[in-house]
Amino acid sequence: MTEIQDRAYAAIVSCGRTKFSELWEDSMSDLMLESLLESLNSTNGNIEFKDIESMYVGNFISEKIVDQGLVAGELAQNFGTHIPIFRLEGACASSGLALYNACLGIKSGKFDVVAVCGVEKMTDRGEIVTDALASAASDWERFYGNTFPGLYATLMARHMYEYGTTREQLAMVAVKNHQHAVNNDKAQYPFPIKIESVLKSPLIADPVRLLDCSPVSDGASSIILCKPEIAKKYTETPVYVTGAGAATDALSFFSRNDFTGLAATRFSAQQAFKEAKIIQKDVDILEVHDCFTIEEITALEDLKFVEKGEGGPFIGEAVDSFKGSKHIIYPTESGEIVVNCGGGLKADGHPVGATGSRQICEIWEQLLGIAGKKQVDLDTDLLTGVAHNIGGTGGVGSVHVLQI
Amino acid sequence: MTEIQDRAYAAIVSCGRTKFSELWEDSMSDLMLESLLESLNSTNGNIEFKDIESMYVGNFISEKIVDQGLVAGELAQNFGTHIPIFRLEGACASSGLALYNACLGIKSGKFDVVAVCGVEKMTDRGEIVTDALASAASDWERFYGNTFPGLYATLMARHMYEYGTTREQLAMVAVKNHQHAVNNDKAQYPFPIKIESVLKSPLIADPVRLLDCSPVSDGASSIILCKPEIAKKYTETPVYVTGAGAATDALSFFSRNDFTGLAATRFSAQQAFKEAKIIQKDVDILEVHDCFTIEEITALEDLKFVEKGEGGPFIGEAVDSFKGSKHIIYPTESGEIVVNCGGGLKADGHPVGATGSRQICEIWEQLLGIAGKKQVDLDTDLLTGVAHNIGGTGGVGSVHVLQI
Repeated sequence: MTEIQDRAYAAIVSCGRTKFSELWEDSMSDLMLESLLESLNSTNGNIEFKDIESMYVGNFISEKIVDQGLVAGELAQNFGTHIPIFRLEGACASSGLALYNACLGIKSGKFDVVAVCGVEKMTDRGEIVTDALASAASDWERFYGNTFPGLYATLMARHMYEYGTTREQLAMVAVKNHQHAVNNDKAQYPFPIKIESVLKSPLIADPVRLLDCSPVSDGASSIILCKPEIAKKYTETPVYVTGAGAATDALSFFSRNDFTGLAATRFSAQQAFKEAKIIQKDVDILEVHDCFTIEEITALEDLKFVEKGEGGPFIGEAVDSFKGSKHIIYPTESGEIVVNCGGGLKADGHPVGATGSRQICEIWEQLLGIAGKKQVDLDTDLLTGVAHNIGGTGGVGSVHVLQI
Repeated sequence: MTEIQDRAYAAIVSCGRTKFSELWEDSMSDLMLESLLESLNSTNGNIEFKDIESMYVGNFISEKIVDQGLVAGELAQNFGTHIPIFRLEGACASSGLALYNACLGIKSGKFDVVAVCGVEKMTDRGEIVTDALASAASDWERFYGNTFPGLYATLMARHMYEYGTTREQLAMVAVKNHQHAVNNDKAQYPFPIKIESVLKSPLIADPVRLLDCSPVSDGASSIILCKPEIAKKYTETPVYVTGAGAATDALSFFSRNDFTGLAATRFSAQQAFKEAKIIQKDVDILEVHDCFTIEEITALEDLKFVEKGEGGPFIGEAVDSFKGSKHIIYPTESGEIVVNCGGGLKADGHPVGATGSRQICEIWEQLLGIAGKKQVDLDTDLLTGVAHNIGGTGGVGSVHVLQI
């Protein structure tokens, strides 16, 4: 075994995903099948469905939106299989946590080849989706009428108050991520937007405006993983999961001491970076959980890419100096980093249960240089990517490190 | 390491559970806390909460009944912790699948000590619980008005037709399990019932009658597990998980070839028995998923304790020869076996997400001889127990082997 195989949890053989959009013609099953079949097909027959020994599904609100629990049985029905299938629910971090447990399943020796599938149907039931999502908040937060825009408004307002983060800097997160989605055929909103559009968009929960919010989306994304030492059997170009961190925090914002960042991010990152033996300057591409613009800024701080309170100016300067190439590049002490290469939750879309595995698909494509029109082009080789996935207002979180 | 430590996934250090009943005064959080604290307390301080490195929660319908998702965050809030917490949803097999993944978490080397907690609140919302449970059926089954009594009625009717299983034999399952609950302080229905009562109870979905059905319940149950080789640090009497099987099947009954048994049981058992290196005659006590009386009979067949079609006469003869000791003992070729020692789902209660871990609590107590008034007394030592947990009509299933 090589050194990277030795410390890796698993090797990614392939990924696949659907378009993220309003997909009223497709059922939850259709979406899972489409993404799983795409991930299988892109192995050119090296892996067939019969090679997969178990599946880990990430899904949040299917009981509420499409009245379907026990998605394991639905997948089994579609594939005509009896393999173990597990459904992980961790709100918007469901498929990050599915990946985490898939990695442990492989590391334990129980399985050689597993699939992860994140999926969510959201748009069919627009009239109840806000309420359904609010089940990831705490009872008292719901009782007083809070929904997620309101909760993240607390984070945004406090960050602006404590650190002087400006509305313009926040808007630039949306501008950057829409710019990144322009070349992403599967993105929900593949078009650029202007700072003024964000600032003039309707106020949802002061100071959160409509274009600060990630959209309501349908979609699915899948990952096929195997034991690191057998990866070369299936692909010439394995991508290794070398760090896996997960953490929790008090469900209620009001039960925490800190209103300007998420402890679940900090603890997850600490663990994942340590395991992968990397530090921040090793990271070339980063997918963060920008469910609201403020969360990209706090994520950059919690992940220690910038000091606390400096997230706003950091992104502001990067966007200001953008000269019209494909991606907006953050300069770091030791190089460059691109964040949310395909548009992030904001512009690629956010079918909540599918986001964690979509981030992995994005990093996998970028590290292999097969991301097509949206391929990141830096002066150095892309060797290390990090994915950051959050559930609720940080009640759970996961961070994974991918390396080639 | 001893031989059993070497092949075990994990060692059970302790278990705890709440009463199963209508517990309107207790929230889902209260129930999880009560069961987890009982399992911690019974280690006499050998394990404190700070020793637990991650938790696996089994829960099915909390979003629908108490409007709460992301229970990981709720647990984190109550314990003031940041450890990783995972919620597994596999309908009524949720905590069986949580245990399965907890075992893989330990076997992977990621965690030394983990907790499993199964929980369900069901009785507060009697008006919606049947509908909520039906989310574990398939869309077409729901569309045509099927609920779980109706689906298991299909299984029961077909078993009666194919194998001549009688209404009296089916009723005896309920009679036996109520008899077993008589000495169980935490059971929902700790009283005996007569065959005539079952046969005269209201018809729910022909041929399923009211007393064929497990009840709607609130409750929680917990397990503390550790790496086998460090178990003696925490307890003089570890119980080892030596086999873990899980499997799936088509969600819809109508998509299967067999209407008289569950393939998910057969595949799960095959795997678990093989890993534990046991055969049926090694098993001393068995917890099966008797959600409806027919399912105890088909489980005995699917688990290969009797030939297909012989489940009915097998239980009929055992109950007929019952002379009034505590437990009704099934005679087997090579000895004796007691099934559902504390009353099973039928009489102990069935808070769906808590059942899989409750079965483990029962076996753990029985193998250690600490089950109090309900302690099973066979001619031989109790060395091996098996737990069988099913979700939906067998869309998922798990089987675990416990040994001392």
